[in-house]
Amino acid sequence: MTILSIFTQVYGGKLLVAPMDGSHWLSMSLVVERLAQNGHKVVVLTGESTLNIEVNFHMKNIDHYTVRTYHGSYSKDFMQNLIKESIKHVFTHKTLLQNMKISYETIINTTNFVTSTCENLLKNETLIKDLETSNFDAMLSDPIFPCGEIIAEHLSIPSIFFLRGAFFSVDFQAVRSPSPPSYIPRMLTTFTDHMSYSQRVINSLLALVESMACNLLYAPFAHMASEFLHRDVTVWDLFSRASIMLLRFDFVFEFPRPVMPNMIFIGGINCANKKPLNQVETKLVNSSGEHGFVVFSLGSMVSEIPMDKAMDIAEAFRSIPQTVIWRYTGKVPSNLGSNTHLVKWLPQNDLLAHPKARAFITHAGSHGIYEGICNAVPMVMLPLFGDQMDNAKRIESRGAGVTLNVLDMTPEDLINALDSVINKPSYKENIQRLSALHLDRPIHPLDLAVHWVEFVMRHKGAPHLRPAAHDLNWIQYHSLDVFAFLLAVLVTTFFISFKCCTYTCRRCCGRKSRPKSKSKKE
Amino acid sequence: MTILSIFTQVYGGKLLVAPMDGSHWLSMSLVVERLAQNGHKVVVLTGESTLNIEVNFHMKNIDHYTVRTYHGSYSKDFMQNLIKESIKHVFTHKTLLQNMKISYETIINTTNFVTSTCENLLKNETLIKDLETSNFDAMLSDPIFPCGEIIAEHLSIPSIFFLRGAFFSVDFQAVRSPSPPSYIPRMLTTFTDHMSYSQRVINSLLALVESMACNLLYAPFAHMASEFLHRDVTVWDLFSRASIMLLRFDFVFEFPRPVMPNMIFIGGINCANKKPLNQVETKLVNSSGEHGFVVFSLGSMVSEIPMDKAMDIAEAFRSIPQTVIWRYTGKVPSNLGSNTHLVKWLPQNDLLAHPKARAFITHAGSHGIYEGICNAVPMVMLPLFGDQMDNAKRIESRGAGVTLNVLDMTPEDLINALDSVINKPSYKENIQRLSALHLDRPIHPLDLAVHWVEFVMRHKGAPHLRPAAHDLNWIQYHSLDVFAFLLAVLVTTFFISFKCCTYTCRRCCGRKSRPKSKSKKE
Repeated sequence: MTILSIFTQVYGGKLLVAPMDGSHWLSMSLVVERLAQNGHKVVVLTGESTLNIEVNFHMKNIDHYTVRTYHGSYSKDFMQNLIKESIKHVFTHKTLLQNMKISYETIINTTNFVTSTCENLLKNETLIKDLETSNFDAMLSDPIFPCGEIIAEHLSIPSIFFLRGAFFSVDFQAVRSPSPPSYIPRMLTTFTDHMSYSQRVINSLLALVESMACNLLYAPFAHMASEFLHRDVTVWDLFSRASIMLLRFDFVFEFPRPVMPNMIFIGGINCANKKPLNQVETKLVNSSGEHGFVVFSLGSMVSEIPMDKAMDIAEAFRSIPQTVIWRYTGKVPSNLGSNTHLVKWLPQNDLLAHPKARAFITHAGSHGIYEGICNAVPMVMLPLFGDQMDNAKRIESRGAGVTLNVLDMTPEDLINALDSVINKPSYKENIQRLSALHLDRPIHPLDLAVHWVEFVMRHKGAPHLRPAAHDLNWIQYHSLDVFAFLLAVLVTTFFISFKCCTYTCRRCCGRKSRPKSKSKKE
Repeated sequence: MTILSIFTQVYGGKLLVAPMDGSHWLSMSLVVERLAQNGHKVVVLTGESTLNIEVNFHMKNIDHYTVRTYHGSYSKDFMQNLIKESIKHVFTHKTLLQNMKISYETIINTTNFVTSTCENLLKNETLIKDLETSNFDAMLSDPIFPCGEIIAEHLSIPSIFFLRGAFFSVDFQAVRSPSPPSYIPRMLTTFTDHMSYSQRVINSLLALVESMACNLLYAPFAHMASEFLHRDVTVWDLFSRASIMLLRFDFVFEFPRPVMPNMIFIGGINCANKKPLNQVETKLVNSSGEHGFVVFSLGSMVSEIPMDKAMDIAEAFRSIPQTVIWRYTGKVPSNLGSNTHLVKWLPQNDLLAHPKARAFITHAGSHGIYEGICNAVPMVMLPLFGDQMDNAKRIESRGAGVTLNVLDMTPEDLINALDSVINKPSYKENIQRLSALHLDRPIHPLDLAVHWVEFVMRHKGAPHLRPAAHDLNWIQYHSLDVFAFLLAVLVTTFFISFKCCTYTCRRCCGRKSRPKSKSKKE
């Protein structure tokens, strides 16, 4: 019996969960379910008519924990249409100006949506009162939008963050983890950790404006928090609450960098979601013959794509000897080959675990990427938005996959990319190496995550992991006051020495020169 | 069956070990023994007539692994006398100047000793040839003096470091772990992570000269390495070899700070060394009655102290109701109380684990400190040299112990300190809190250490944990070239704007003023 299991057995706590929707919930739900099974009372907060389509979809099996919903200000149909529109934009050629306009609109729409959803939660007095009297031990939240943190602060309970990364590295900034811009590429740059000089210039400029960008983006939350808590609250106050940060990556995938002791790396946690294939799936993959099969999915949010693109892709698939299992709910392309099977949903991790899986065509979401790594399947990556371009770059830079631009790609590009990752040994060797490194760990990421959530619940936080840096202001942290003093001392010393020298010189020269001047006079 | 055990079962590797002597070997030997039990072939390198008295003492049980000794240039008697002399100095009142002189002499003596021992190893052609043909998978070394690293570099095998900390934080510097001097106290300062302004000034000055001090201290090793490897080798080359660093602390004891992904924290690993008390010991502790007992040891190197100090201490012990178990081999003090039992050696961790252990008087070596933490026994600390002052400060700042100056302390001071830690509830509460935090971990530090050594052996290193910072020079790492460029752009822009403005002003003013000048002329 481990120390961990002894603690778990004697302790049943109360946990409040503030998840994010979409694929974010996929891996968090594993932790939540395990915690509920461990005997903790778990309450999950979620909007009833919000972007939480996927949360609700995945929340079907809610035997173990309580879900408390609150009213959202947007209808489900409205939100579904918004997603559809966003996806349509991804598959449309745009000028730089159009791209910037659409990105801006997306940010504004999303911010409006999450802000108003959060406002609804904070204004739901019945729910808040219920939470106040529930005596939770801790909050488990996905703080990419830190609404849960306002509640946690209100309830004075410690927080555990569960995330892949927040905008503008606010997570790393808030916990005072140094991020030298010389080798830590900023979000959305698609730079690697080995940057050219011009890339370092761009990266440093981005690093300089990061704090400002965070303040701007998260201003509505700081405002809501200040109003709700009746005192001044900054973005940094909300993000520096984390007792423990459960980060959904490890350094097989992410570039190695300085970290803080309260950061726990649980990359690949989603691979724990394993089931045997059903009869139909088993028959399908077994019938794929010696060439095996390819798995293709663009993630939970993108199940259909424009017909011209679908036809290009179907065209490529017709030409390869592998069977293709494609998650696709749109109109069937007329040129679909007999080797291509369209499915409405696929057990991605279980299919990739099959020895006949030869390649994985993915949008490079962090969950998919880790399923590729866990199962050592080389990838063809078609990143669409968000961190997907960065994710793809990381796998590409390790020689374990090929990135294609989904907009410009021709059927030949896709055929060539698939041919490379399937038939060039280096791709398979590299993904096998990454997989071996990733899987060779002393404890499974799911057990690790559960341990640290329970740790925070047991000890009411983890203050021993909080660096003293939090108690210093910007000037003190960077020792600018100290260096100013040292510089002053240096300058004063130099000035006095200089004055002494010149005085001495003048005295000496004066004595020597006096006779001269006398003689001149004479 | 865990992933770890599967790996372990199918793999039997070859490991070379370069330990340090004295107490350093205490916890490393646990890892080495476990690795040998796991089926790896382990070869331990050690000088035959060196400071390794303790290594040899502890290396009695060498069934599991091979010990390869090499000739040392100093006799065992000479070394034992050197230690005795050093201890004598610790118990002597000195002026600051005397203190500096002795410290300098100690550094010179130690450097001469370790350098000449290392030279002997490198010149031992038979041994080196044997090592060359042995096909080791990795080197496990205590790099406080990096002789093992020269061998590892010569054999082109990856290294695992096992240490509490190297001089001038060369370990943290070499792996490019940022250490802001604003809240990370430098070695031997006895500062905490909350420093006053003047302490921050001192700390920053020390941080500024750290690199230089490292270069000076380790220059003989860089020189030996360059000669042995027939190419230029720096101190940083030797210390940045670490694939994994097993650090003998955690953040229950050490102040939280930025770390790197290849740092594994195994504080308290030595607490794994547990045995039941023997009959005599059991009888002794059980007879201690309701007041329990106090354990007193000044570490493996100090078993006798000057008589006047011994009498002071015995005097204090006479006055307390607890039984005292004192590790002491010197002449028995005439005033020894009946409650005080002198022993030549004591099973420290096992005694502290007994529920009747009330306090632990220790020299604050890192092993002892962790045994105090593991067993939740509050401490009275009498730090003597090295990192012991810093260790004591850490426990004191957590309210789990009292520090006394062994030179100035009177019997009353010791009585009061013991009374505080035994009878004031806060000390017991604080050490219990630290103990609970320390023991609540997902995996035992010994298993963790063994896992990572085997990881490096299996994967021939851990290059995926090596930050790209290693490929940047000092200027690039700190982005000075980028900021110089940005400054140049800024200055040029400002200059051009200024020139444009003045030109425009002149033109405007010129036009306006021309008529004036004309009128003046008129």
